[in-house]
Amino acid sequence: MKFRIARSALVDAVSQVSKAVSTRTTIPILTGIKVTADEEGILFTGSNADLTIQVKVPLREEDKEIVVLERMGNTVLPGRIIGELVRKLPEDEVEWEVDERRVATIRSGQAQFQLNAMDPEEYPRLPELVEDRKFSLPADLLQTMIRQTVFAVSTSEARGVLMGVLWQLEGGKLRLVATDSHRLSRREAEVEAPEDLTLTNVIVPGKSLSEVGKILADRSGWVDIVVSDNQLLIKTTHLKFFTRLLSGNYPDTDRVIPKGGKTELVLSTKELLESVDRASLISRDGRDNVIKWVVSDDGRVEVSSAAQDVGSVTEEVVARVSGEPMSISFNARYMIEALRAVDSDEIRILLTGPMTPFSIRPADSDDSLHLIVPIRTR
Amino acid sequence: MKFRIARSALVDAVSQVSKAVSTRTTIPILTGIKVTADEEGILFTGSNADLTIQVKVPLREEDKEIVVLERMGNTVLPGRIIGELVRKLPEDEVEWEVDERRVATIRSGQAQFQLNAMDPEEYPRLPELVEDRKFSLPADLLQTMIRQTVFAVSTSEARGVLMGVLWQLEGGKLRLVATDSHRLSRREAEVEAPEDLTLTNVIVPGKSLSEVGKILADRSGWVDIVVSDNQLLIKTTHLKFFTRLLSGNYPDTDRVIPKGGKTELVLSTKELLESVDRASLISRDGRDNVIKWVVSDDGRVEVSSAAQDVGSVTEEVVARVSGEPMSISFNARYMIEALRAVDSDEIRILLTGPMTPFSIRPADSDDSLHLIVPIRTR
Repeated sequence: MKFRIARSALVDAVSQVSKAVSTRTTIPILTGIKVTADEEGILFTGSNADLTIQVKVPLREEDKEIVVLERMGNTVLPGRIIGELVRKLPEDEVEWEVDERRVATIRSGQAQFQLNAMDPEEYPRLPELVEDRKFSLPADLLQTMIRQTVFAVSTSEARGVLMGVLWQLEGGKLRLVATDSHRLSRREAEVEAPEDLTLTNVIVPGKSLSEVGKILADRSGWVDIVVSDNQLLIKTTHLKFFTRLLSGNYPDTDRVIPKGGKTELVLSTKELLESVDRASLISRDGRDNVIKWVVSDDGRVEVSSAAQDVGSVTEEVVARVSGEPMSISFNARYMIEALRAVDSDEIRILLTGPMTPFSIRPADSDDSLHLIVPIRTR
Repeated sequence: MKFRIARSALVDAVSQVSKAVSTRTTIPILTGIKVTADEEGILFTGSNADLTIQVKVPLREEDKEIVVLERMGNTVLPGRIIGELVRKLPEDEVEWEVDERRVATIRSGQAQFQLNAMDPEEYPRLPELVEDRKFSLPADLLQTMIRQTVFAVSTSEARGVLMGVLWQLEGGKLRLVATDSHRLSRREAEVEAPEDLTLTNVIVPGKSLSEVGKILADRSGWVDIVVSDNQLLIKTTHLKFFTRLLSGNYPDTDRVIPKGGKTELVLSTKELLESVDRASLISRDGRDNVIKWVVSDDGRVEVSSAAQDVGSVTEEVVARVSGEPMSISFNARYMIEALRAVDSDEIRILLTGPMTPFSIRPADSDDSLHLIVPIRTR
């Protein structure tokens, strides 16, 4: 293989696929980045067992020449070194060549690197997905849906499907759900989907989705989603994510979401977040990171926490309260993470009792929901 | 004690003294920040065994009221919590009170913290230094002198005095020297000192100086240096650093600095730094991080490195060369750290032989010197 490529395009492609490259060397070939040069351009692939990211650098873009292809071919080069190397190249043009002895030469200005390449035949092949189950949504909407749910997945290997985010589709509405059984986050949105396409139990690993979210953060345009039995493909211009699906049945979470409520609060997202953040300064030193709310029916919420040996904190937040007065205790971290995921200025909290899950929604929308299970305190 | 204080002044003072606060709890009282309120203002003190930082917040500054003192007193509060807490207070004014039961109450807006304070009598007393050995220099010059030397100290506990930076003063010239025996950095400058003041063996721990350097980075004005037998005091407006001195005799380093040289190179600091940085991408994977220079007498320096299994890199840097052609190998990290400490655009390198130390100086000055011991290669 032999080509010349613009350094900025090379740096972008390598830094994106690097997000999936394995750092563990249990499968040595996956510590490499695969590079394929053909008449369509240069294709970069990075993969770990769960997630594969592919970026294509086309020969031309908007009449600008990006790649000059001299000889087609395949190679796999060490990912960590390539990732740093491309950023440090001195000139805007990079010459890239791999000879028959599998020695790669990367030249830019006066600098010339020679790297030992790996055998591209060893690199795992990507599945060919049948595109019969496919839908589309804007890239920024998908990024938001991931951001508003993925933090709630379980990080414990023992929890199986709870390490993933559940994707459900029905009647053109996509729903993402994540829970670690102490809290739950759910986000719904209309998407472009065939009317008869229904998905009930597609479970995508949380770690993979976090990486997808990072890369989509600065993307506009639409993404296509293709679902197969054990893979999900997310694709947009010049960019593809293949992620393995988790097997198993995701629990029915509809049952745990309270229908009515005894006490409703409407309050400022920012004020509440800051007060919970302050209260958790003290409670974090305790075992459970517990903070307590006392809701009065005259429109005040007293936020407090105490930790033996350290001290205590208390403050009041103004709220519009309807229903009964109530006291409730919960893990401050779950509340902080939920509030950070909310985009609206005001939120609506529905309490059903001191020991039953309570819900947090944007005041102006039902698309997004966070649920937290309270903690029993003395 | 009871006072009100402007939050910004409180945040600055606490964040500066926090740089010295112990995180290890072998001496529990040192995990706290001592706060003393008297008619001069509020004095904050943070300390570990080696370094103590004191910041005074005066009652008024430039006709602006910063502190309103209601009751004088002393307290010690947990450093980690206070450090985070003050940054998260909601309003610009903070009320601070400690009662007889040693409970501290910190109020700002609707938020109220209560913290258990420690016994201020347990906090170690600071030495009263006799100010008979004292000199002065601009704060930014001291910060530069620290930055250009402190990275070269040894980080190994076993190396004793080499973990410190040697301060020497003679005829109004201050000299700082640091070495880990593989490389050495030295910086000299004129300071304001009594003509007869001579210091020969003042050794300041590198870690303490690094913290001093960070805090001085945004200071203007002059600093006074007071030296006692086992302490160094660095003081400037509202700010004092007390650092323990290392005992022992610092080795005589003058002997190792080459007087003449066989080959002199003058070259661009930035170009050389970038080329060594690229070469070290490959050599870091090797055991010694070794890179090699081949200096030709026609004005080229070939920079190269190779690591088995990985590959190799080679490039040429343009230099003004006088003297003999020479090959030399050395640790890339030492060269990178020395070049990053150089402020001038061009440097002068003097080679004395493939196995003897070589020097790096700014092309336009003799105040600053870096020395690197070469490595024998096959």
